[in-house]
Amino acid sequence: MGSEMTAEHLRQSIQQVTSAARAASRELAGLSSDRKNAVLKSMAASLAKRREPILSANAADVESARRSGLSGALIDRLTITDARLQEMIASVEAVAALPDPVGAVLREWRRPNGLVIRKVRVPIGVIGIIYESRPNVTSDCAALCLKSANAVVLRGGSEAFRSNQAIAEALQEALRANGAPAAAVSLIPVPDRAGVDIMLQMDRDIDVIIPRGGEALIRKIVETSRIPVIKHAKGVCHVYVDQPSDAAMAERIVLNAKCQRPATCNAMETLLVHEGIASAFLPGIVAKLQAAKVEVRGCERTQAIVPGVAAASEADWSAEYLDLILSVKVVRSLEEALAHIARYGSNHSDAIITSDSAHADRFLAGVDSACVYVNASTRFTDGFQFGLGAEIGISTDKLHARGPMGLEELATYKYLVLGNGQIRE
Amino acid sequence: MGSEMTAEHLRQSIQQVTSAARAASRELAGLSSDRKNAVLKSMAASLAKRREPILSANAADVESARRSGLSGALIDRLTITDARLQEMIASVEAVAALPDPVGAVLREWRRPNGLVIRKVRVPIGVIGIIYESRPNVTSDCAALCLKSANAVVLRGGSEAFRSNQAIAEALQEALRANGAPAAAVSLIPVPDRAGVDIMLQMDRDIDVIIPRGGEALIRKIVETSRIPVIKHAKGVCHVYVDQPSDAAMAERIVLNAKCQRPATCNAMETLLVHEGIASAFLPGIVAKLQAAKVEVRGCERTQAIVPGVAAASEADWSAEYLDLILSVKVVRSLEEALAHIARYGSNHSDAIITSDSAHADRFLAGVDSACVYVNASTRFTDGFQFGLGAEIGISTDKLHARGPMGLEELATYKYLVLGNGQIRE
Repeated sequence: MGSEMTAEHLRQSIQQVTSAARAASRELAGLSSDRKNAVLKSMAASLAKRREPILSANAADVESARRSGLSGALIDRLTITDARLQEMIASVEAVAALPDPVGAVLREWRRPNGLVIRKVRVPIGVIGIIYESRPNVTSDCAALCLKSANAVVLRGGSEAFRSNQAIAEALQEALRANGAPAAAVSLIPVPDRAGVDIMLQMDRDIDVIIPRGGEALIRKIVETSRIPVIKHAKGVCHVYVDQPSDAAMAERIVLNAKCQRPATCNAMETLLVHEGIASAFLPGIVAKLQAAKVEVRGCERTQAIVPGVAAASEADWSAEYLDLILSVKVVRSLEEALAHIARYGSNHSDAIITSDSAHADRFLAGVDSACVYVNASTRFTDGFQFGLGAEIGISTDKLHARGPMGLEELATYKYLVLGNGQIRE
Repeated sequence: MGSEMTAEHLRQSIQQVTSAARAASRELAGLSSDRKNAVLKSMAASLAKRREPILSANAADVESARRSGLSGALIDRLTITDARLQEMIASVEAVAALPDPVGAVLREWRRPNGLVIRKVRVPIGVIGIIYESRPNVTSDCAALCLKSANAVVLRGGSEAFRSNQAIAEALQEALRANGAPAAAVSLIPVPDRAGVDIMLQMDRDIDVIIPRGGEALIRKIVETSRIPVIKHAKGVCHVYVDQPSDAAMAERIVLNAKCQRPATCNAMETLLVHEGIASAFLPGIVAKLQAAKVEVRGCERTQAIVPGVAAASEADWSAEYLDLILSVKVVRSLEEALAHIARYGSNHSDAIITSDSAHADRFLAGVDSACVYVNASTRFTDGFQFGLGAEIGISTDKLHARGPMGLEELATYKYLVLGNGQIRE
């Protein structure tokens, strides 16, 4: 009985938060670009002004994390330094400088009966974001949502709960100071897991869930949510070195795609090599990868060509290592490479290195991924690298947003239909 | 033990169907417009050639439906007459004549490092459609999916199982005759409910579910599905008659929006009237509605102005009647009309009748619906009426597709990134 009451109380308190976010979203839809930018500049100033409470809330989170035995890497992700706070502030200011994504007329036409139909870009409404560890996500996402006139309901990791609250309070202060609704930036008010489950039932108030985190988190959300989810799931990215190809270019791209920042979702996890060049190409690239501290796991043919390489297991082909590990497979043909990518890939980013333009075209058409590369590193899958500005993440879904998801993808559209008395015959 | 084996067997047989559809989708992605159109013309011819087996399968479905006591209206929806078969054939031919939605370059730009980024429209992959009763949906949806180079997995109502099979066989014959994979048009091979539940778990093979049916069906699907769903849910459409407005125009539009085809999702269900014109406007329009056999249910102020009108209950304001019933409410202001629509509406289609352009602008901005009308009937929310060609339905979701969902909305995009050795610094 007691715990039932608590569950009901929790549901009500989350319902209040999401209802307030929905109401706030209606107000935001009417804000001009200038007013939104003024709020963003206030938000940046407020983060600077509230340096003390933010850093002390973060210190308390870090202290708890240490006591509960979180790994050094996770504690590093959690920690807000002065430099990181400056980066958060700079990010919010950068969003103010971006073009306003909403209000644009995407298309307008007149029907024979005189009706004018205008397709316009409008905010989605309320965006729910579920994420882990890094507290900068709180201000980054809040800024992008505000710029696109969406309210946001944030649910960060429990280990960062105090940090996220302190950051959200700073942002809400800026909203209030500009006469905008504080609930435009809302936090789920409890750190425990039950809060997520309740949030995912609020399909009347939240229009979309964007999860940013590990595979297990995302699968759980997809299984639970009544709200549409745009997945930011794993990247099992491939580089396929074709015959014919420029070996020096292939080496440069393979090393970059694996080593430049291996913990990102656009780093290469599997190298595919055409059998016609495998004997010439593999020994050199494996030596260079190993010199760069990459653990190489190969198929049988790779092992035959480069003795001493460990054997790749079936699980390796679909693994997202996010680390200095690489699986390598020799394939008989471009078609076998395509079939491998279709079977084991994650529809994220895949590259071919080739000097045959027909092969390039076949790869571009045959790979069903958000970003398909010819003769370039997969590491370019990124909103800034694409020239699209800040991104809320990289969608691995096919609906609504695919690949880098920026301000335009935080909007939807509606049709305005202007008549002078038309009725349907 | 026996039933466990059966459940596992069912899962496997559905898995085979969806895997084959996934494989077929890869082949379809490579088909030229000409080849797709040739298949569509063959499909039309094959439906004509197989008139006998289609009509006799349908007669068996109708006979079972009669025996199990289905209502006359449902039996009418289920029945394929010669005229309806002709319409199905004409619809498939019409889709062949539409422009090809895939392959278009949506945007192309060059980065300072020389990378060329090309955003192109591509098929989604495999579309799952869950629908009720009307067997023409089978050929309509199959044609639209083929034109957009998507494979389709169809799950019609159990009462139409034999009809849908006969139609699908005709379409598959045309695919085979053109060297295209028959699995491009696939049916869930069992008529029972368990088939839907299993289908909704096949998130590796099916990219999106489009449900077309009643509210209960759609809610169940949203709760169960691991696959993204684009809802085609209910339309609780409003017409708000403002002060000032042209009373004759308002009458014409109100009668059209309610009576022209009341069973459609874009028909008006609630009439909102500004208090300043209510006494002048309501008696006349209620009399005309009643003369057209519409049952009017009013708020207290409506009842005071037009004696004899039944009282609307709270449930009336969110009801989708799909019938000759109308709820009527007097509001104090445009803002109250907006608040009512936000609270009870379904984000489908809503109209204002006004002669004040500032009021029109406020309504257009303030109503968060797929289609927002000024001085026109809500009945125009339709792919053909919008000039967009055939539609697979009307989305009430905000992501990916909103409002009439045609060929372009059956596509997604990907980025082709063309380099000459670029790596990330």
